[in-house]
Amino acid sequence: MNNKVTICECFARDGLQHETKFVPTSWKIKILDALTDAGFTRIEATSYSHPGRVPAFRDASDVLLAIQRRPGVDYKATCPNAKAVHRAVADLEAGSGATEISMLISASESHTAQNLRTTREKQWGEIEEMVRIAAGRFKLVGVVSVAFGCPIEGTVDPGRVIDDVGKFADLGAKLVTLGDTTGLATPTRVTELFRRCSQEVPQIAPVAHFHNTRGTALANCIAALEAGCRNFDSSIGGVGGHPAKIKYGSGVTGNVATEDLVNVFESMEVDTGLDLRKLMLISRMCEEILGRDLHSTVARVGFGALPKDRMHV
Amino acid sequence: MNNKVTICECFARDGLQHETKFVPTSWKIKILDALTDAGFTRIEATSYSHPGRVPAFRDASDVLLAIQRRPGVDYKATCPNAKAVHRAVADLEAGSGATEISMLISASESHTAQNLRTTREKQWGEIEEMVRIAAGRFKLVGVVSVAFGCPIEGTVDPGRVIDDVGKFADLGAKLVTLGDTTGLATPTRVTELFRRCSQEVPQIAPVAHFHNTRGTALANCIAALEAGCRNFDSSIGGVGGHPAKIKYGSGVTGNVATEDLVNVFESMEVDTGLDLRKLMLISRMCEEILGRDLHSTVARVGFGALPKDRMHV
Repeated sequence: MNNKVTICECFARDGLQHETKFVPTSWKIKILDALTDAGFTRIEATSYSHPGRVPAFRDASDVLLAIQRRPGVDYKATCPNAKAVHRAVADLEAGSGATEISMLISASESHTAQNLRTTREKQWGEIEEMVRIAAGRFKLVGVVSVAFGCPIEGTVDPGRVIDDVGKFADLGAKLVTLGDTTGLATPTRVTELFRRCSQEVPQIAPVAHFHNTRGTALANCIAALEAGCRNFDSSIGGVGGHPAKIKYGSGVTGNVATEDLVNVFESMEVDTGLDLRKLMLISRMCEEILGRDLHSTVARVGFGALPKDRMHV
Repeated sequence: MNNKVTICECFARDGLQHETKFVPTSWKIKILDALTDAGFTRIEATSYSHPGRVPAFRDASDVLLAIQRRPGVDYKATCPNAKAVHRAVADLEAGSGATEISMLISASESHTAQNLRTTREKQWGEIEEMVRIAAGRFKLVGVVSVAFGCPIEGTVDPGRVIDDVGKFADLGAKLVTLGDTTGLATPTRVTELFRRCSQEVPQIAPVAHFHNTRGTALANCIAALEAGCRNFDSSIGGVGGHPAKIKYGSGVTGNVATEDLVNVFESMEVDTGLDLRKLMLISRMCEEILGRDLHSTVARVGFGALPKDRMHV
């Protein structure tokens, strides 16, 4: 089997999305440059969210202008709507834009109503408009959220998710992210959905995006890998993700932690193409920036006993 | 496939092993009785460690005397040496003993020297002596630690682990625990070892015992399940395990958390036989007893969207 995977590092966007304190622009740039230097070839850099609604990314254009790019590396910006794509186009035409933009559909009607305050039909209309504005200038990444289960409706029909993946393919996306927004995926469901995806929409490379809400993120990544998936989203320290409804106590969980994902992949002789020493320095840097211990266990104890050639890539 | 699993709840022993504060005997008894009532059929109750060396279990005999037993439920006591088995026999003859005892071998010579301060050969001699003393009065559980990798030597030969499993079988054990002591197992290695175990020592039921040192415990449990394993060790709140060498910061990790393991199994329609509502009450009780949030994510956010018939067992 092809043992090369591509990990899209999401710390700077998905990771920082729910942070209450603004992370200074210069620190974001430092992190993003360090991620490029460590060997990531897909990096989620920022979001063109409304600066009033998500102030964490009010510096989206500044960040994209200042980062040091490396040929072959894609910098993704999240675009919630048509207005966001207009901004992405303006930055690109000024010579400093994202190379990828992502567009979101939610697989359940209730979650769409609650999270996006619209209907699936209207959201697809918005996405079509976004694709028209983008006009072939970006790599398009589709995102299907609650793809493995909805916190309101429960079960999500895998057939509907596959239809959504197919629509993104028709609109020109090459990558479609299957998101487990609230930690309802199981390895069984993951295997089923990724297999169906490669059989029914083979022109799409699916991306595994698992939240660790119920501790299953790494297990689900392994299931996706075994079902043929070679693209993964993760975040240093496992920050970000979906703000979980907490029953009692503290302890929000987020994305699968990049350090932990890389450790298990490299231990399985799956090639992430990353410089592991540099990754651990970035892990520490991110904890210093946020001023707290994050959720990676490997950040605490170091990599496991990796095959010798893996420690010096 | 047979979709029934047996989870051995280890909170009261493996979980409390490294706690610095003594948990009162009455609380231990309360937890153990609640575990029995929630439907666990194998429960690690205590350890006959030297009371001076591991004061956490100085009340081993009192605990075993006081717990309310249910027919068909096994109560395991860890026995580090021959002296411990003599104590187990004495308690049994007084009518209040454990029904299972466990005996430990380490798969690597260096780990044996460091952790048990002996050699593998001498440790096997000790185990043979323990089996002679037990004289058929207990169910015997063999434990092979560092079965998936050694923190000192690195790779561990799976053939040696299989030999150890075979020796335990020859000595009369029906269950042998394969332990990932420091979080070096990967799903690939787990699949290989559990498959070999059932092929080469089919008379043994292997037990999956994974520590979450590097975030892989749940993924490794799933791999073991898929390789045919139906016996698992876990601990409420994921406490216990092996004290990891922490590079910086806090955040020791332990066993796989029972709540998280049960959640993913039940979501996969694997039958744990447990009352999930009672399990969550015990989870809360354990956090109250230890006075802190433990490591289970499901304890924070609740079970996922389980098939309806799973919520009322």
